[in-house]
Amino acid sequence: MTRFDEFKDIQKKLKAYGLVLNIASWDSNTEAPKDCFPYRSEMLSIISGEHFSLMTSQTYQDIIRDLLDQQDDLSETQYKEVEKAKKSLDKIVKIPKHEYVEFSKLRNMANRVWEEARENEDFEQFKPYLEKIIDFQKKMVSYRSSTTQPYNVLLDDYEEGMDMDKYDHFFQTIKDELVPFVQDILNNKPKEKPSYITESFPKQKQKQFVEYLLEVFDYNLNRGVLKESAHPFTWNTHSKDVRLTVRYLENYVFSSIFAAIHELGHALYEQQVDEMFDMTNLNSGASMGIHESQSRFYENIIGRSKAFWEAHFDKLKTLFSHQLKDVEIDDFYHAINWVEESFIRVEADELTYPLHILLRYELERAIFNDGISVDALPELWNKKMKSYLNVDVEKPSDGILQDVHWSGGAFGYFPTYALGSAYAAQLYYAMKEALDIEKLVKDNNIKAINTWLKENIHCFGSRLKPEEIIQKVTNEPFNPKYYIRYLKEKYTELYLKK
Amino acid sequence: MTRFDEFKDIQKKLKAYGLVLNIASWDSNTEAPKDCFPYRSEMLSIISGEHFSLMTSQTYQDIIRDLLDQQDDLSETQYKEVEKAKKSLDKIVKIPKHEYVEFSKLRNMANRVWEEARENEDFEQFKPYLEKIIDFQKKMVSYRSSTTQPYNVLLDDYEEGMDMDKYDHFFQTIKDELVPFVQDILNNKPKEKPSYITESFPKQKQKQFVEYLLEVFDYNLNRGVLKESAHPFTWNTHSKDVRLTVRYLENYVFSSIFAAIHELGHALYEQQVDEMFDMTNLNSGASMGIHESQSRFYENIIGRSKAFWEAHFDKLKTLFSHQLKDVEIDDFYHAINWVEESFIRVEADELTYPLHILLRYELERAIFNDGISVDALPELWNKKMKSYLNVDVEKPSDGILQDVHWSGGAFGYFPTYALGSAYAAQLYYAMKEALDIEKLVKDNNIKAINTWLKENIHCFGSRLKPEEIIQKVTNEPFNPKYYIRYLKEKYTELYLKK
Repeated sequence: MTRFDEFKDIQKKLKAYGLVLNIASWDSNTEAPKDCFPYRSEMLSIISGEHFSLMTSQTYQDIIRDLLDQQDDLSETQYKEVEKAKKSLDKIVKIPKHEYVEFSKLRNMANRVWEEARENEDFEQFKPYLEKIIDFQKKMVSYRSSTTQPYNVLLDDYEEGMDMDKYDHFFQTIKDELVPFVQDILNNKPKEKPSYITESFPKQKQKQFVEYLLEVFDYNLNRGVLKESAHPFTWNTHSKDVRLTVRYLENYVFSSIFAAIHELGHALYEQQVDEMFDMTNLNSGASMGIHESQSRFYENIIGRSKAFWEAHFDKLKTLFSHQLKDVEIDDFYHAINWVEESFIRVEADELTYPLHILLRYELERAIFNDGISVDALPELWNKKMKSYLNVDVEKPSDGILQDVHWSGGAFGYFPTYALGSAYAAQLYYAMKEALDIEKLVKDNNIKAINTWLKENIHCFGSRLKPEEIIQKVTNEPFNPKYYIRYLKEKYTELYLKK
Repeated sequence: MTRFDEFKDIQKKLKAYGLVLNIASWDSNTEAPKDCFPYRSEMLSIISGEHFSLMTSQTYQDIIRDLLDQQDDLSETQYKEVEKAKKSLDKIVKIPKHEYVEFSKLRNMANRVWEEARENEDFEQFKPYLEKIIDFQKKMVSYRSSTTQPYNVLLDDYEEGMDMDKYDHFFQTIKDELVPFVQDILNNKPKEKPSYITESFPKQKQKQFVEYLLEVFDYNLNRGVLKESAHPFTWNTHSKDVRLTVRYLENYVFSSIFAAIHELGHALYEQQVDEMFDMTNLNSGASMGIHESQSRFYENIIGRSKAFWEAHFDKLKTLFSHQLKDVEIDDFYHAINWVEESFIRVEADELTYPLHILLRYELERAIFNDGISVDALPELWNKKMKSYLNVDVEKPSDGILQDVHWSGGAFGYFPTYALGSAYAAQLYYAMKEALDIEKLVKDNNIKAINTWLKENIHCFGSRLKPEEIIQKVTNEPFNPKYYIRYLKEKYTELYLKK
């Protein structure tokens, strides 16, 4: 048995633990009955513990060290596997186990307190937990790195290769270009939102339309499942088991349609990873940002395009003949791209969405880099909301308490949401050089687009890093100008052309 | 840490492995996409392997040995836990690991061949595998016991305390009493089956009725899930997660109704096990036979009684007003207790069902005790079918190839199916001393029956052995006369009273 065989042996075991934990989590999130959780949590923590022990075992560490010492003996893919394993290892192995456990408990607790505080509209209740979480997160970073820039470590965790320099440039561009553009749009948009948007669309028919979308996007049901859950998500264990969930709101049909297309973007990515990676740790998307680029590409660039609805609006009208009887395709196209001031990130439209992320990035940066106090956060939040989106936050649930991320210690995560949209735009202009996207979409030939994405991005799983993918596909490094260009082209056409 | 604490520590880990494997199996049986299985099987075999290693580890064996050496230090429940663990251990630890693995592979293979052979109506194809399975099973028994009666070991595996002597008496009673009685009924029953039985009953409404049944039987949905699957089954991990599945056949509504009540019987049992056993290996029903007694009690003794439909027939008629418009409750009561000659065990009615089991018991006994050759089985099968049920088997799929059990090596399992029905009848007469069952059922007060079963049977989980339960509840050992009495009373009334 070679050293690499030993590595693969442990990897396979780790994947097996990952698989069963993953299946349990799917079950927990989609159908497990509410009373089962105390017992289940205790049992799953035992399996997670086994997983953790194996992943941090001295044997495994020695194997990885030896393999990296003799990396010339490894093939390129083998090297990538070991490198990725080393990176995952470094994230946990340097942290004393009791602190790791303590942090995990703190986050669970903070999460419950956050829920309550949001319910009570009481930031003060959450504040001490947020302080503890931030302090703990800083300490955790200090175990792993001697950097004086802890936020860079967190940014890299969520998107390998990204740091404050790159993000500063990105978000400055958004601030300079989009904030005034959004103001312009908001000043010029029609006053009244079309009323049919919030009419009642029966759930069963929404489901039928989502099933139709699965076909349109060529999602492979032999390798997947469509299900309902409280929050839409994509779930996968390997390329042959990639599932998605949707939620049906009877008085807001756009929710299920665009959540479905969004999750389909994630799911197609995972289904198209080359099966040669199934047994490796490279068998999933390259990064949060690249993943989000795919979901946003499908949701916004395809799903919210006029061409798409030229192909599918009739189908939707057949299902909802009553609700949509007086609606023309142009009105519909406008409605699905409705821009408005809003408080809540997850409900924001495509154009204002990045401004929400800009705000969070600036706050996180201030917390970790400038040592701003938690006390000062709510006011700063509200000021920025006023300045970027022209809204007055009147309650914490519309402001600083709206998102779950911070209670879970997930600092550095938010920026990938905007980055994904920006990647999507850059990839879009590259794809346009090769394909007549508009025509393919109109002809209901999404398959050709899937194939292009498969060959250029999906098939590699995480063998390529995000920056390698962007460089390879677009012939330049990440550049936010494409995102600005895409948004300006689309929304000028929609709102500013008379 | 005491020796018992160490025992509990390993037990808890074993339960954790059991939980995740169980959840994976639920997923596999209800929704996993078809292409996921090769990867999944390989991964799950790793987790099963970990489970197996832990369960057969020398440490664990030593702990159990020590605890049994000093059993006076244990409480009664503690002792039962250790005793049960020892029993599970003995079943596997004496078997050389490579043979265990080989047997498992053989069964998988035999299962695939059985499916094909049944498809091809070709017993010869399956024969060599059946021979190998029987030889292997005999060898496996020989590792565990020096008995000259290997079938007794297998019978005890599926129902602790049972052996050929007891089963011989049971099945002889069935043969003497029921075979002629069934003939009598068949000669006196109406010629024509009511045609509405096989009319089309839309699936969605069947589902509504099954959901209504969950309420009627007071099944706790905070501790369970109702779902659809290819074959109905009950699944549980502990008292707070007990699920059931149903299948909906549009042209046979009785299938979903009575499968649901049957599975509800299993499920109520598991939901009512005292939660003090959640963290022990005693947290599930006492045995296959006792479990089946509960499902059969609910399905047949309650679900197929006139009193039950006096309470619920109107509800069914409301849902299926077209299909049932001309049907009176008496006709309906007759139809759900329709007796007929049939080939297939799983489709047999309540009265002829035990004759199918009688046949299988006699064949298995002949195989393991009298060394009858596999060559002789089909003819023997067909002869017995003629003699007990007066039907001529014309193809193996209607005869010896109909059941999955033998291809999985599960000899000794079948008898528990009939035993369960017989237990149910004995328990029924005991319950009648305490409760006015007919009135409770008519008044839609199944809850009172559940409570009685909880206090007398369910709450104990497997802390009591089957024979202890029967003795405690009925004040005598198992006695088949109650089963005969119950069937004769019910079916005489239905078919022989003019």
